[in-house]
Amino acid sequence: MSSDASLPSADLPLGFQWGAVKAGIKVSGKLDLAVALAPGGANAAAMFTRNRVVAAPIIVGRKHLAATGGRVSAILVNSGNANCMTGEAGIEACIQTCVAAAEEFHCIFDEVFPSSTGIIGVPFPAEKIVAALPSTSDKIGPSAAHAELFASAILTTDTRMKVARAIVGIDATHPDYAGMEFRIFGVAKGAGMIHPQLAAAMPPHATMLVYLFTDLDATPAELEPLLALAAEGSFNSISIDGDTSTNDTVLLLASGASGVKLDATGSGRIGEAFANALGLVCNSLAHQIVDDGEGVTHLVNLHITGAATETDARRVAKAIAHSPLNKTAWSSGDPNWGRLLAAAGYSGVDFDPNTVTVWIGPHLVLANGLRVPEFDEAATHQTMLEREYTIRLDLGVGTAETKFLTCDLTAEYVAINADYSS
Amino acid sequence: MSSDASLPSADLPLGFQWGAVKAGIKVSGKLDLAVALAPGGANAAAMFTRNRVVAAPIIVGRKHLAATGGRVSAILVNSGNANCMTGEAGIEACIQTCVAAAEEFHCIFDEVFPSSTGIIGVPFPAEKIVAALPSTSDKIGPSAAHAELFASAILTTDTRMKVARAIVGIDATHPDYAGMEFRIFGVAKGAGMIHPQLAAAMPPHATMLVYLFTDLDATPAELEPLLALAAEGSFNSISIDGDTSTNDTVLLLASGASGVKLDATGSGRIGEAFANALGLVCNSLAHQIVDDGEGVTHLVNLHITGAATETDARRVAKAIAHSPLNKTAWSSGDPNWGRLLAAAGYSGVDFDPNTVTVWIGPHLVLANGLRVPEFDEAATHQTMLEREYTIRLDLGVGTAETKFLTCDLTAEYVAINADYSS
Repeated sequence: MSSDASLPSADLPLGFQWGAVKAGIKVSGKLDLAVALAPGGANAAAMFTRNRVVAAPIIVGRKHLAATGGRVSAILVNSGNANCMTGEAGIEACIQTCVAAAEEFHCIFDEVFPSSTGIIGVPFPAEKIVAALPSTSDKIGPSAAHAELFASAILTTDTRMKVARAIVGIDATHPDYAGMEFRIFGVAKGAGMIHPQLAAAMPPHATMLVYLFTDLDATPAELEPLLALAAEGSFNSISIDGDTSTNDTVLLLASGASGVKLDATGSGRIGEAFANALGLVCNSLAHQIVDDGEGVTHLVNLHITGAATETDARRVAKAIAHSPLNKTAWSSGDPNWGRLLAAAGYSGVDFDPNTVTVWIGPHLVLANGLRVPEFDEAATHQTMLEREYTIRLDLGVGTAETKFLTCDLTAEYVAINADYSS
Repeated sequence: MSSDASLPSADLPLGFQWGAVKAGIKVSGKLDLAVALAPGGANAAAMFTRNRVVAAPIIVGRKHLAATGGRVSAILVNSGNANCMTGEAGIEACIQTCVAAAEEFHCIFDEVFPSSTGIIGVPFPAEKIVAALPSTSDKIGPSAAHAELFASAILTTDTRMKVARAIVGIDATHPDYAGMEFRIFGVAKGAGMIHPQLAAAMPPHATMLVYLFTDLDATPAELEPLLALAAEGSFNSISIDGDTSTNDTVLLLASGASGVKLDATGSGRIGEAFANALGLVCNSLAHQIVDDGEGVTHLVNLHITGAATETDARRVAKAIAHSPLNKTAWSSGDPNWGRLLAAAGYSGVDFDPNTVTVWIGPHLVLANGLRVPEFDEAATHQTMLEREYTIRLDLGVGTAETKFLTCDLTAEYVAINADYSS
């Protein structure tokens, strides 16, 4: 596992190529058209935002996955324009780019998976993408440098690219694949409008885009539950501003080029190893997304324990994670546990304030609803000056728990998002 | 109706006295202990926050209202300490102040209604209140100056006091009260942590405190539904930061000193006039609370129409009102309707983006899910530079609607709330 910017090419999954060019969609003139190819095709599983307002590429992408039964040969991602709230014309424009990509990359139209990120409601410049496609040919390849082109081109307000990878070696006792390896490579973009609420086969407009590539051999039906599980503990357990984007997309492609086949049920040794590695890659990308959140100066790991149900624990975590009063307190390292309790109190979850225990980092703050005599405010403040720390809140009700990663709210976030027509 | 700082004393309801002193709870040394008396007693109705975490005075106040069947002779409000998350000791401390107030003001212990606002989780200095009570005697009276003392002492981060009043004259054709008058006077505090979710007879810790005084003659049972109705359209229809406080309280007292009696059912002419006037007073106070919100530079009236149900309309309004991306866009007057649609889209309400229409002030922005050709961005930006304007979003589903008042999110809000241990 690593998220280094410089990737050894040997660590990348086989059966994929990446690349990017400048299509002139971004006013900045930066890379804005990214392509990933699976020349032999790949099996796919996807998750989309639960937002009721859906960008055109999501509508088209879902249709394509349905039509092919989960096969993808090319991913076409543009940044700079989300192609959302663009009506029928937006869908037509998206289809136009898929047609051109199918022609350029010699694949079936339905096997092109489109994604867009950027501003909402601005007519989609399909002609720029169509015009730029031929120039991609000498920018596409299987090397780390190519993968980095892809990772760079999908960014918008991100300050750095987000990649993670895993290599799984199969031990010598395995009857079929002893000594063989398979790989996972993940690429993400995010920054603001991050509170993904992903659901399998549901509509999106994605500001969080995640592409996961593996050379494991697995069917779409096998990939789907494994992706859902990995996303639940990672992308669905983070929040920057509580705003769920209209384009969030997570796409997992399996080329099969490693020669290693997922166990039939996905529950055997290969399945377990893949699930673990996929979870690590997703967690790393989710962490990188929050870490690069707009104006973020502190990352807070909320650990809610002692809940009656996991659903309750998540409701408390989200209420705290979305509370401006808590997020601003974190920006100055203020151990304001009253605001933690107030947010838990309006989460809708039933608990007795007199059984609540709170720790900030290693410091016990509150026990049985009262500030403990040994509470060391200065030391707690010191902990909260660190870039990342954990707040644990035990409700004292049951044994269910959850973890949720979030961040502070700073004047810098306001400045970035108040920027006229950002 | 007026919210002038200088109140003609003649406009205040009869049967009440107000006052305030410095008890030394606020570090600033400002007025921090407010008292309102109903020497002949008053009938009461109250609403409290839905927060699961409840301040001590809420627990005690609810118990007192239950014990007396809704009678109040004295309101005792301190600012500077919320007496919340203070355990049994906090409840004992609150009771101690009620005992002292009952003695000082010669009333029944149960008829003292306590309120606290300020920091959470700090031991409650009952002794300061008990010590200060005797000094209130020459500060209490029925004049406008006395009422202003009360209105000032309950403030915390507010920059100005919030008062509103109404005088209802009964026309010459009324069989019993021709030519008579009754009065309503309302006082509020608020600023941050404002997203009241008030419910009758439910627990609180209140950052929004509202006291309504009328000299109408009405029973607690008559007052309750009228207060609920007025609160729903005012205090329950505003949001500054989406944080629901642990102490929100709205208390309505009726002294009966006007000699005008509410119609038995509350639905006759007097009831109607009272309901209207109470609504106006509550709306004015709610508006003043948002207008004085922490760091607020723009007030936005969200008018959601065309919804299937009022509940749907309110869900959309709240999703937009709590969206940091929308709130920051408003701070710079950015007509970013994409963010409006994105928030509506994740509200959980079912609608078709292609039937949505959006107006910002008088400007049509979006029709049938598409930006209209005549959209005038510069003029819309100009409208959004005004202190207050309306955004109307029609879902195109049904005929239900709602209005919701909210505000922008500014760097100043972050600065105020990031201030260490504010």
